[in-house]
Amino acid sequence: MTRPLITAYNWAPDEGRGLVRDMRVRWALEEVGQAYDVRYLNWGEQKERAHRARNPFGQVPAYEEDGLTLFESGAIVLHIAERWPGLWPSDPTGRARAIEWMFAALNTVEPVVWDQVIARVVDGKESWAKDRWPGVLERLRMRLDELSKALGGNEWLDGDFSAGDLLMVQVLRHVGDPAILAEHPNLKAYVARGMARPAFKRALEALRAGQTGAPPAGWPQ
Amino acid sequence: MTRPLITAYNWAPDEGRGLVRDMRVRWALEEVGQAYDVRYLNWGEQKERAHRARNPFGQVPAYEEDGLTLFESGAIVLHIAERWPGLWPSDPTGRARAIEWMFAALNTVEPVVWDQVIARVVDGKESWAKDRWPGVLERLRMRLDELSKALGGNEWLDGDFSAGDLLMVQVLRHVGDPAILAEHPNLKAYVARGMARPAFKRALEALRAGQTGAPPAGWPQ
Repeated sequence: MTRPLITAYNWAPDEGRGLVRDMRVRWALEEVGQAYDVRYLNWGEQKERAHRARNPFGQVPAYEEDGLTLFESGAIVLHIAERWPGLWPSDPTGRARAIEWMFAALNTVEPVVWDQVIARVVDGKESWAKDRWPGVLERLRMRLDELSKALGGNEWLDGDFSAGDLLMVQVLRHVGDPAILAEHPNLKAYVARGMARPAFKRALEALRAGQTGAPPAGWPQ
Repeated sequence: MTRPLITAYNWAPDEGRGLVRDMRVRWALEEVGQAYDVRYLNWGEQKERAHRARNPFGQVPAYEEDGLTLFESGAIVLHIAERWPGLWPSDPTGRARAIEWMFAALNTVEPVVWDQVIARVVDGKESWAKDRWPGVLERLRMRLDELSKALGGNEWLDGDFSAGDLLMVQVLRHVGDPAILAEHPNLKAYVARGMARPAFKRALEALRAGQTGAPPAGWPQ
């Protein structure tokens, strides 16, 4: 087999914090111990024809492996978890529950987290932004409260660390205000635990090493 | 094996249109030809302790089968697709691509569709709702445009009908204004094609037959 090839940015507006979605895939590959290569795009190239052939929505990451091309970070992480051991239990029930938490991260928790990112970063200067913010926070807090109760005093969401935890930690890292996450000390500790994993650190280091590009012309300094 | 048991509402505010997420699971079970039982909740019971034990986020559907309890409609549909043939191709590459479209439906397309639902249904009467609406529509239209190009003249997103199409059709049914979807005739026809499937029709009929409950006290008539 050739090494997997992922497509990522050589610059991103998050200042190397590893919030871009290729981090999910890098982290998963590090967890299973699989080396990979990276095709880097300049910021903006994701919307061009060449990359749209890999991902019709013009986003990163994309993943290539022996003739298989995949987009959607969730599907790629799931593929990696199936291909190499280390990202979920070997029994079918444990595996189904890890997949359940993958979807919970991306389809139940991420939408409210992302809404809060858009409200802050994209719409922050709109005249109505301040009036809308309390509702955004209320929806976010409700979900975090439910997630906090589900996690309780456990180390991970369901038994050992799984692909579900990997995606959930990355989603929670997008909660912009640290005070919001800290309202639930168990969630704050959970994210810290994820980020303390050697595979996370290796992935972040590799991501940062690849940030050799420049912001697009006109990007606010 | 005992028959799968799903948990659903006996009433929902969508007037029997089958937009609630248990429809995804009903449709999947009909596609693979697997009979199932239903536990019905009154509206509001999803937030109570008994159901939170099945789904910590207090949502439907939940799925039970021989000791396995799952929440998250995406994970349940994926489990059904693995358990019985009919929801994706038998080769690993085709299967990975069906999963890719499942995640695309729930993690790339649904957030902008859902934002439009919230903006209309939840926030519609807020003082700032009108000023925010153009941005909501712009993000929705961008995604629909990309999806329309990806579908092109094909019948389904990637080869035969798959679990990815099932989820995508259900997500697109939430686009409230029919004129928005009709801006892309191929997407409009795609949704109609999904709804014309015998399995979809059987699922919707079963869902409607189960709508024997009443709206909660104080629900606007």
